[in-house]
Amino acid sequence: MVQDKIAIQDVYPDDYAWCYGCGRLNENGHHFRTVWAGENTETEYTPKPEHTAIPGFVYGGLLASLVDCHGTGSASLALHRKNGHEPGDGTEPPRFVTASLQIDFMKPTPQNAPLRAIGTVEEVHPKKWKVHTEVFANGTCVVKGTVVAAVMPKTFMEQAEK
Amino acid sequence: MVQDKIAIQDVYPDDYAWCYGCGRLNENGHHFRTVWAGENTETEYTPKPEHTAIPGFVYGGLLASLVDCHGTGSASLALHRKNGHEPGDGTEPPRFVTASLQIDFMKPTPQNAPLRAIGTVEEVHPKKWKVHTEVFANGTCVVKGTVVAAVMPKTFMEQAEK
Repeated sequence: MVQDKIAIQDVYPDDYAWCYGCGRLNENGHHFRTVWAGENTETEYTPKPEHTAIPGFVYGGLLASLVDCHGTGSASLALHRKNGHEPGDGTEPPRFVTASLQIDFMKPTPQNAPLRAIGTVEEVHPKKWKVHTEVFANGTCVVKGTVVAAVMPKTFMEQAEK
Repeated sequence: MVQDKIAIQDVYPDDYAWCYGCGRLNENGHHFRTVWAGENTETEYTPKPEHTAIPGFVYGGLLASLVDCHGTGSASLALHRKNGHEPGDGTEPPRFVTASLQIDFMKPTPQNAPLRAIGTVEEVHPKKWKVHTEVFANGTCVVKGTVVAAVMPKTFMEQAEK
């Protein structure tokens, strides 16, 4: 079960744990949590009632957000493992940012169902990883997405501190 | 100015005005509003403080949401105009859903800046429209996105009512 595992977002450095999608320190955010599931990655989330598109169906922007953070989290898990680490071993994981996001809405996503995002991670460059994600609701694939995630440039925080 | 114009979302039928991104009846949503700007379309939005990715920069999922609703709104404006109508003339506009969403994050998007999404609409089929969007912050293009939007199938509401 996802909730029984240490997620990569549980161990992001505090300075990088404010993301609206997946930051554990963002009180108003979604708190997406991404874990290993065998060789795949997994994020579970049940949308809130207000996350609607047309009544009865989940908002596409929320699904895009899920795929986005699941992508950067999966890339972080994968590079962390490549470096010989697992979440919770005391080493801070790398933090990724999203370079691009592609979402195909396969079917309307029913409201009131827990969503499971399952990711397959592919290294395309030591600092750039591609994550293929399928989102399931009630066992049916409703969304397919691809994230290209890049290791966060150091200039990010320098710019933020200006 | 966007706020002085009647947006397409201002005149969506009530049943379809609950979208978390752009539904005027969703109390907890973003309330994106899309208007004509000459031959282009425009949506303005200033992210809230909690819509952060890394401190100082806007969350990608919020930017994806902006591009998404700007896309379906722009497609609705365009088909409505093709049908001889403008928002506010008393005719209900068509409602679109998103088939696919492609986002390229060109630069980090600074927090605390109003965002302007500018769309160019292309008809690819009478019921399928493509909207190319550029999002600007402080005059710089930070995001490029493409939405393929399809006229909402009647089965959507029938499924929702089950």
